[in-house]
Amino acid sequence: MATKKGGSFRVGDRIGRLAMLLSVAMNLVLLFRLHKGGIFADEAPLQRRPEELALRTCPVEMEAERREGTEKLPPPPRSVAENAVINLDHGDPTVFESFWKQTGEKGTVVIPGWRTMSYFSDAAALCWFLEPEFAAEVRRLHRLVGNAVSGDGRHVVVGTGSTQLFQAALYALSDGGDARDPPASVVSAAPYYSSYPAVTDYLRSGLFRWAGDAHAFKGESYIELVCSPNNPDGSIREAVLSSEAGKTIHDLAYYWPQYTPITDRADHEIMLFTVSKSTGHAGTRIGWALVKDREVARKMVKFIELNTIGVSKDSQLRAAKLLKVVSDGYELERADEHTDRLFDFGRRIMAARWERLREVVKASGIFSLPEFPDGFCEFTKERTGIYPAFAWLKSEKAEIEDLESYLRSQKILTRSGKHFGAGSNYVRVSMLDRDETFDLFLNRLSSLR
Amino acid sequence: MATKKGGSFRVGDRIGRLAMLLSVAMNLVLLFRLHKGGIFADEAPLQRRPEELALRTCPVEMEAERREGTEKLPPPPRSVAENAVINLDHGDPTVFESFWKQTGEKGTVVIPGWRTMSYFSDAAALCWFLEPEFAAEVRRLHRLVGNAVSGDGRHVVVGTGSTQLFQAALYALSDGGDARDPPASVVSAAPYYSSYPAVTDYLRSGLFRWAGDAHAFKGESYIELVCSPNNPDGSIREAVLSSEAGKTIHDLAYYWPQYTPITDRADHEIMLFTVSKSTGHAGTRIGWALVKDREVARKMVKFIELNTIGVSKDSQLRAAKLLKVVSDGYELERADEHTDRLFDFGRRIMAARWERLREVVKASGIFSLPEFPDGFCEFTKERTGIYPAFAWLKSEKAEIEDLESYLRSQKILTRSGKHFGAGSNYVRVSMLDRDETFDLFLNRLSSLR
Repeated sequence: MATKKGGSFRVGDRIGRLAMLLSVAMNLVLLFRLHKGGIFADEAPLQRRPEELALRTCPVEMEAERREGTEKLPPPPRSVAENAVINLDHGDPTVFESFWKQTGEKGTVVIPGWRTMSYFSDAAALCWFLEPEFAAEVRRLHRLVGNAVSGDGRHVVVGTGSTQLFQAALYALSDGGDARDPPASVVSAAPYYSSYPAVTDYLRSGLFRWAGDAHAFKGESYIELVCSPNNPDGSIREAVLSSEAGKTIHDLAYYWPQYTPITDRADHEIMLFTVSKSTGHAGTRIGWALVKDREVARKMVKFIELNTIGVSKDSQLRAAKLLKVVSDGYELERADEHTDRLFDFGRRIMAARWERLREVVKASGIFSLPEFPDGFCEFTKERTGIYPAFAWLKSEKAEIEDLESYLRSQKILTRSGKHFGAGSNYVRVSMLDRDETFDLFLNRLSSLR
Repeated sequence: MATKKGGSFRVGDRIGRLAMLLSVAMNLVLLFRLHKGGIFADEAPLQRRPEELALRTCPVEMEAERREGTEKLPPPPRSVAENAVINLDHGDPTVFESFWKQTGEKGTVVIPGWRTMSYFSDAAALCWFLEPEFAAEVRRLHRLVGNAVSGDGRHVVVGTGSTQLFQAALYALSDGGDARDPPASVVSAAPYYSSYPAVTDYLRSGLFRWAGDAHAFKGESYIELVCSPNNPDGSIREAVLSSEAGKTIHDLAYYWPQYTPITDRADHEIMLFTVSKSTGHAGTRIGWALVKDREVARKMVKFIELNTIGVSKDSQLRAAKLLKVVSDGYELERADEHTDRLFDFGRRIMAARWERLREVVKASGIFSLPEFPDGFCEFTKERTGIYPAFAWLKSEKAEIEDLESYLRSQKILTRSGKHFGAGSNYVRVSMLDRDETFDLFLNRLSSLR
């Protein structure tokens, strides 16, 4: 199957009118729901949702896919109605689906009923719920890509996505010795990932508390979150604070060759990664941390034990298989360089999308985007641009102060800059959706003047 | 394959001396580790562990199984050294492995690389990360067994094991409206599951706080945890508190026909279940809640979104398959009643184990066990006993005040009553380990006088 770089969209030419109707209905429900109170961590606080939302209005394409169950054949591509609500609020990495369709059965995982029934993967290991074959593929992939130090001196801790690992790291780094101690201050340089404050504070923990923009922080003792390339704006970052008592967590979810040149092998105390943004498997909920200090790793394991008594072994087995396919694509002689190389596939698509987006934005006269320097990628051995997973779009028109609302009125759902510690003249837009959605987004954006 | 009811164990007759040596080495490491600071949620607080524990000393049987990967053939049975440390501290449900081996490929799940990559299972649903086929099998199984009201009026919320759902329920039931409000008091009648206090308090949440034995609680406002059949003592329970402002969470993890007669269809506000104790798949980390109130369900979903952005879809697909095999075993004409009926398999083994344990305990003169009344099971349509997943063993000898220490000196690892709000003259012993381990346990117990 050829890589889709699609431009045109053909309403209903496969699925027919019913699909379109249902699709539109679902989009309206989604729009309404997002307006009333968010689906995701970092949105509006809990609000009562009206009963109408119980309606199950999946597009028939989704139903068809579901019925197919575990059949080997991938479902046909979805069609998107031209006037549909375009949801680019989340970083749902469905752009990678077409890669995994073209790899065929290589990425299929088979788990017999009797396998991995125990809580324990290796009862004698520090991370007793870590499947050894997953850990081995993690280390292998980092060796291949060269994006992080991952040798035997580093502890691999697996988590239910990097969100759980972020909380595990806060738990491990905050000093819980004395209940009378004030909670640790958690900071990150604005604009910061909108989940950081929400996830830090939702349980009103006495161990740690969100303390806002790292640039504005005064004090010696803190936990600084460093996301690089940064969510939402794609910038390459280092810690902005420095003190003896300060601690850092490096969120490197996007430090992969499809998004940015790999300029050096990262070597920090705690580094977080996730299959969601590396292979595109958000639904698998698997992340991992590379941790220098044994005691910190042990406390992170303790958190995950208390929080969920370990991490799905099925997803670890699947993630091991997927990471193996990615490494095999570069390391095996018989691999096909056109169909088997995830990072090439990803970079090709991301570069093309960014080029098209920049053209539309330039022509609009309404918006602007950040500029990034090229860099030499040690993985591809060539100079390459930065193509972030999100576009950090800015309104350049004085009358559009609330860019999220403006775009929502155009049926484009994005996330306001205010959730990221920035102004509401910014929004974050996912660049990771399916081709059909991205094409529709560009079409609609280019119609705005 | 016939059901194993094994008695004899043959040291090394398959694996040889090396396996035995490694097995003993691992057991010693485990014993040491458990002594120094626990593997699980409800054990000793964080302590520094010496570097020796980094040793990877898996028995070669485990390594062999791992190498086999996703092959279809189950591994050969493990042998257990006669002088091995017997770890019955956790409720690791490996007793069910032999059932799933005998079902063969029926329980195998196959997941292609392109499947369930999105965060969303059904973006328009209240529980947007719940796989519809898992929810359907949950409702079907409850209809079959008759152990809980699970119709369309109930919301199914999936969690990363019932531990996550327990926290989600605390989050949903505690009134987080005002940061100056005191945390909700969380109580349970002693002896209570040792994880409840640990999991309630590990983050020092300002929303809820452990308040101990429900019998001793004074006040109108509380969240009462009701576990029935109860972990650790197997008793059938109802809430002990009652007030307008009080709330309850029913943990029904063990309310299945292999453990207890199904006397009525449970119908409470929040009911928690898990595949760990129903099908035996602890490593899959899938639990579910049946929730009456829509707003409570919505807040539980919000917690899981903030905590782990949903629940592994791979594990949901696998759990759906496993629950389907269980229901098919009773509902399909072609099912084999000797090999396909999980609850029959489980009850047969549990009844036999309890009978043998009661004999040994009676003969010992040192210990005693709780007695349970028979009951009429609406599922099997016959009178049946209660065969709990744990034995709540009591020391009847004045000189054995600390029963956990005494048994540890006999290389039997159990969990002290003091973790359950009871005396240290009690221990909880898992009844769910593999046949070889249980046989060894009985042999060693019967040698004590």
